[in-house]
Amino acid sequence: MIDLAQGRGAATLPADGTAETFDAWLRRRQAQAQTLIERYVPAAHAVVPQLHEAMHYAAALGGKRVRPLLVWAAGECVLGDPEALDRAACAVELVHAYSLVHDDLPCMDNDVLRRGQPTAHVRFGEALALLAGDALQALAYEVLTPDTGIAPALQARLCALLARASGADGMAGGQTLDILATGTAVDAEALIRMHSRKTGALLKASVLMGAACGGFAPDRSNAHNQSATEALQAYGDAIGLAFQVVDDMLDVTADSATLGKTAGKDAMQNKATYVSVLGLETAQTLATDLRDKALLALDRLPPAERARSGRLRELADLIVLRSS
Amino acid sequence: MIDLAQGRGAATLPADGTAETFDAWLRRRQAQAQTLIERYVPAAHAVVPQLHEAMHYAAALGGKRVRPLLVWAAGECVLGDPEALDRAACAVELVHAYSLVHDDLPCMDNDVLRRGQPTAHVRFGEALALLAGDALQALAYEVLTPDTGIAPALQARLCALLARASGADGMAGGQTLDILATGTAVDAEALIRMHSRKTGALLKASVLMGAACGGFAPDRSNAHNQSATEALQAYGDAIGLAFQVVDDMLDVTADSATLGKTAGKDAMQNKATYVSVLGLETAQTLATDLRDKALLALDRLPPAERARSGRLRELADLIVLRSS
Repeated sequence: MIDLAQGRGAATLPADGTAETFDAWLRRRQAQAQTLIERYVPAAHAVVPQLHEAMHYAAALGGKRVRPLLVWAAGECVLGDPEALDRAACAVELVHAYSLVHDDLPCMDNDVLRRGQPTAHVRFGEALALLAGDALQALAYEVLTPDTGIAPALQARLCALLARASGADGMAGGQTLDILATGTAVDAEALIRMHSRKTGALLKASVLMGAACGGFAPDRSNAHNQSATEALQAYGDAIGLAFQVVDDMLDVTADSATLGKTAGKDAMQNKATYVSVLGLETAQTLATDLRDKALLALDRLPPAERARSGRLRELADLIVLRSS
Repeated sequence: MIDLAQGRGAATLPADGTAETFDAWLRRRQAQAQTLIERYVPAAHAVVPQLHEAMHYAAALGGKRVRPLLVWAAGECVLGDPEALDRAACAVELVHAYSLVHDDLPCMDNDVLRRGQPTAHVRFGEALALLAGDALQALAYEVLTPDTGIAPALQARLCALLARASGADGMAGGQTLDILATGTAVDAEALIRMHSRKTGALLKASVLMGAACGGFAPDRSNAHNQSATEALQAYGDAIGLAFQVVDDMLDVTADSATLGKTAGKDAMQNKATYVSVLGLETAQTLATDLRDKALLALDRLPPAERARSGRLRELADLIVLRSS
């Protein structure tokens, strides 16, 4: 198992010309995510400090920042615009943060512990938690649409990717399938259908938003662009699913202190998971297969992008081999 | 009082060259809003029908469609792009619909009646209502960012306006101030601070999104553009506030059947309103003053736009003189 504090040691050339290990990259990018969150979700605000405090609490506390990491890793692969990448990384994390706040509410998962701390509604009350989630979603689109600094066409493309990944055909739809499936018999196919939306869509969008920052989008008139985008889409699909399979495994194998959230929750709530449906061993095999699939997808990148796909490869390992 | 079924009779030239009364325009635009909602929020969907049903229920049922009307009225004033106007009108109504679903939840206003029907959480349960609201917010940005049909720069501008009006500095912030103020002593200034965000921001954004569809945005290097935008901003400010003042008056003077929602709710919940703070008579004077202010703002439009501001004028009357 890889701990987030343990890098993989693979060296690439960062901007300053010195080799940077994956571990150093990880720490640098996670710190950068924190800086961006502090910038765009300051704890204090003149007019409605309570709302900003709740938003800040939800977005700033801990988290592995997997989605921003995917944005930046894809961005390094396509030499994406740095300002756009930073804003995309922040926006996708804001959507993730809002979804956690709403998922934890009493009418949903009714969870009291998140990242080792009381959940937002425990801390601020349900009404403020609900509104903080709503405001974080809106803020994501604010962050993506600055007056200057990002080409408007890229702003529109980033908003389009984020909205489609988080709405009824993406995250919110998957969350609905999850809620409706609780307590019912579910097979592996239904699980994949649910999770490809619930968590997969936003993870995949993170990769594609990073790609968009380098001008990459599906484009049949441009073979290079098209094949790079298809490879990154396939990577995003595989990694999105792998993430959830591993999450389900960790719910069984890890303890609450390591996870920073309530372990064993899925079984307690009688939720169908990859572990409950496939068994722990088959789930482990599936996770490993999905990582291989993700790495194979990167092999299909055009040569220049393939040469810069190191961080995406390392993230695939991290996502599958993580311990929390 | 003006009923929505009673037009003001002012005639302007519609696209087909015949005179169209305000009443006819209103009915045509309201029907168009319904058509757009049915298109973008279909009741049935292959993968997650329950979520789509809840989204459709929240967005499709009744409503005056004041925000879409403002988008189109401003759009006619600036000769805005029709496809962009339709999508902007739909998007702003989707955000409005999501805010109502969340406002009605038990942890917020805990209301059971909306537009004469059970509220979404009464009909679908709290979890689905919450998710439907979340998905409607995301859908608004999907609608604004089609692959083709609207210039990407306009897409970005529309997303920017909508996000800023609905987030922590807009609607969600105002809603928070409202919740925090319930049961406490509030003066007129605090009420305006709250309502300019809670309802005013989205109404103003409707006007500015319509203006954006004609290429109008603040631009100090372009005097015509700048002065038109400033006039429309002032109109939006006045009309946004007037709407809420009248809403508060109707809560006291109208009955639930006419309103389609629970009348007398504000007093019951000990909420500060323009009526409770100013008294009914002063509130009425304020509403009339705000309408005058809105009309004066339109007088400051450049001549070409002023000549096409008829629908905005009529909407100012409608908003202040409506009976529901």
